[in-house]
Amino acid sequence: MTTMWCEHGWLEDGPVWGVRLETDGSTITACETGVAPSEGDRILDGLVIPGMADCHSHTFHRALRGARETGSTFWSWRSTMYKIAGSLTPESYYDYARGVYAEMLAAGYTCLGEFHYVHHQSDGTPYVDPHAMDEALIAAAEDTGIRLTLLDTLYLSSGFGSPLQAEQLRFGDASVEEWIRRVDALGDAISLHPHARLGAAIHSVRAVGPDDAARVARWAVEAGAPLHVHVSEQVKENTDCERVFGMTPTRLLGEAGVWEANATAVHATHLSDADIAELGRHAVTVCLCPTTEADLGDGIGPARALRDAGAALSLGSDENVVIDPFEEIQSLERGERLTSQSREVFGANDLMRALCSDGYRSLGWSGGALEVGAPVDLVQLDLGSTRLAGVDLARVPLHARSEDVRRVWVDGREVVCEGRHRTVDSREPLERLGRQLRASTR
Amino acid sequence: MTTMWCEHGWLEDGPVWGVRLETDGSTITACETGVAPSEGDRILDGLVIPGMADCHSHTFHRALRGARETGSTFWSWRSTMYKIAGSLTPESYYDYARGVYAEMLAAGYTCLGEFHYVHHQSDGTPYVDPHAMDEALIAAAEDTGIRLTLLDTLYLSSGFGSPLQAEQLRFGDASVEEWIRRVDALGDAISLHPHARLGAAIHSVRAVGPDDAARVARWAVEAGAPLHVHVSEQVKENTDCERVFGMTPTRLLGEAGVWEANATAVHATHLSDADIAELGRHAVTVCLCPTTEADLGDGIGPARALRDAGAALSLGSDENVVIDPFEEIQSLERGERLTSQSREVFGANDLMRALCSDGYRSLGWSGGALEVGAPVDLVQLDLGSTRLAGVDLARVPLHARSEDVRRVWVDGREVVCEGRHRTVDSREPLERLGRQLRASTR
Repeated sequence: MTTMWCEHGWLEDGPVWGVRLETDGSTITACETGVAPSEGDRILDGLVIPGMADCHSHTFHRALRGARETGSTFWSWRSTMYKIAGSLTPESYYDYARGVYAEMLAAGYTCLGEFHYVHHQSDGTPYVDPHAMDEALIAAAEDTGIRLTLLDTLYLSSGFGSPLQAEQLRFGDASVEEWIRRVDALGDAISLHPHARLGAAIHSVRAVGPDDAARVARWAVEAGAPLHVHVSEQVKENTDCERVFGMTPTRLLGEAGVWEANATAVHATHLSDADIAELGRHAVTVCLCPTTEADLGDGIGPARALRDAGAALSLGSDENVVIDPFEEIQSLERGERLTSQSREVFGANDLMRALCSDGYRSLGWSGGALEVGAPVDLVQLDLGSTRLAGVDLARVPLHARSEDVRRVWVDGREVVCEGRHRTVDSREPLERLGRQLRASTR
Repeated sequence: MTTMWCEHGWLEDGPVWGVRLETDGSTITACETGVAPSEGDRILDGLVIPGMADCHSHTFHRALRGARETGSTFWSWRSTMYKIAGSLTPESYYDYARGVYAEMLAAGYTCLGEFHYVHHQSDGTPYVDPHAMDEALIAAAEDTGIRLTLLDTLYLSSGFGSPLQAEQLRFGDASVEEWIRRVDALGDAISLHPHARLGAAIHSVRAVGPDDAARVARWAVEAGAPLHVHVSEQVKENTDCERVFGMTPTRLLGEAGVWEANATAVHATHLSDADIAELGRHAVTVCLCPTTEADLGDGIGPARALRDAGAALSLGSDENVVIDPFEEIQSLERGERLTSQSREVFGANDLMRALCSDGYRSLGWSGGALEVGAPVDLVQLDLGSTRLAGVDLARVPLHARSEDVRRVWVDGREVVCEGRHRTVDSREPLERLGRQLRASTR
């Protein structure tokens, strides 16, 4: 048994003084509040918050952060991004992902949903080990200590039934049946890794037709696995979907039974009122990626309306142009204020729940809370920056930055100390491989 | 003569390797590029950028950063803010401003425009020394080393001719003539301070009628002083102005001759096409305050359209909920992307010009550039953070944070070292006085 005494701990209703956690090493076994430390307690000053979930990441997009030219539309950016995807190997992906995952941990993300679709060799042929790319990511997660849900993504079409383009071949499986065979085998392999878990993803209504989407949804329900899907990030997806199917992506996925699963709609930027009602009625989780949605010029999604309708929220770093959970929730709140021209749309508690427990749930884990039974996934914040001077404890998440993260534990293991990952130097692979991957875009 | 060799320096067209600056201590006297360091040069590794201008600040609003309750509208926030304004004394304002100015310098702001309207005692009676509040700010600037333009603000009405409300009395002068007498005397006093300068401000069309605005504009033109004015931050200002005067605030101020001065329109969030054309035709500077405009739910101003019409841009931290010049330009760019649903709206060079040389000009100073004749106002950035790993040098301002600021010089004097102000501890006054000032809001 180990015990940790937090000067302040973030509970469901916000910060509380004197939170004493007993653990069996990896799980919280007792939680007292308002108490002084006891002899032998590890003393954690500042504010301890639950580990945060990054529910939507494409790890390799990080290579485009600060790249000189990625074009003036989402679609031009995407074609640059495809060139990076095309140049990845299992070896370079492992090496690069270690750098990104260490950066995520140092920012306070303890649980990650990797929306993973770079499955095969560049021409679409499976690797000799058909799980080589999955294993690269699982190994990087294991090395760095981040909790991983590998959202294995079905990607069959370049758009509403058109065949995959050359640069998309490596994303594709021959059919949904092939995908099922592959992920079932992957599920057996992943069960050997206690900090990794399998989930399913439908890339989008562009890439997967309704019958195949329905098949994936049935698989996810039967497997008890989370199911994620990109929804209505760009207006063009909506207009194309209306043209081909006469309905919105949300409705199409609803008819395919996707919202019956433990489902997360990613982005959900351009929704009709009926879409919002449908996602709310099924208590779907909507994963917003505010820094990405701004960077890519997607637009501001209707987060408040979705929440009011009954949806849960979670956050994702997506293209990883920013890796900072606090910046995501601050951007979410600012977007709401800008569209509604009002203030205080979400409270800090709402936003922390989205980052922590609702995010964990959307990735198929329990946790993201300082409570009995939760894993010891913790983030200690240093409150000593000038930026936070005068900030009420209950408002800290609205003003914090990843720079304030001091220590991070996952399953009781201290992986970040003094703001740095204890074993992995992020910068080196991010710079070396970043240059190499970007060379492929010229 | 002192010489500084910058590994990389930010010039008009972006970063250049090997920039060697000769100075006479306070002014740049020679600037070579692409050269190796010479013996005796002070070596500055990383990236050196020009000092940045914060063109719109209400210093005391900083006390509301992280306050628990400030309401769900701009107007409810304003009434809380008035309580803070009401409790200021020359002593506490000096003390608090020292903390804020040291925070600004550590973030890389070297030049500040203080939009100053807390002139008199709470009941509106002038202090025995009628410049006591101005001198508090000038002394705080001198102590910390920030370059200050004190934008002395005329504030006569609570709204389109209505008398001042009780909590606004200390902002007001008896008449525009009284304001002119007061600022003329202040101009004589301020001329003793080499790093401070006088400018004029019209609070808004709400607070100053067109005849008085015209009188201030003439004063500014004759004095060669910059003139700033809040314009169309909230829709309500527009609708009230249309109702009373049958025209927009921009047009009203145009008819008063305001745009003939070295004028800066602050916010300019809600403009008509004709307003945009008018501000562009007069090459007015528009000071955007993106983090404030998001926090207060103002909206996203038409920055790209203004620039295309011929206006210059500058940035302001305004309510100081955020003090980070990089975050301001990143928020500006993100806002444009979100409204236009496109990408790469402004380049890093455009945004740096707005932060540096155009900002300096809008405050009545030359500078904000690494060039001969400019003051030695410099900011050295540390490029070693994980966040910046893989970021192209030419894109650093789009990904940097105030945390990356390592050293800052104003007029050749090194005021910030290792990210901290050399003589003033910001946290202490920000916490102690923040608590005290906020007590007045309960």
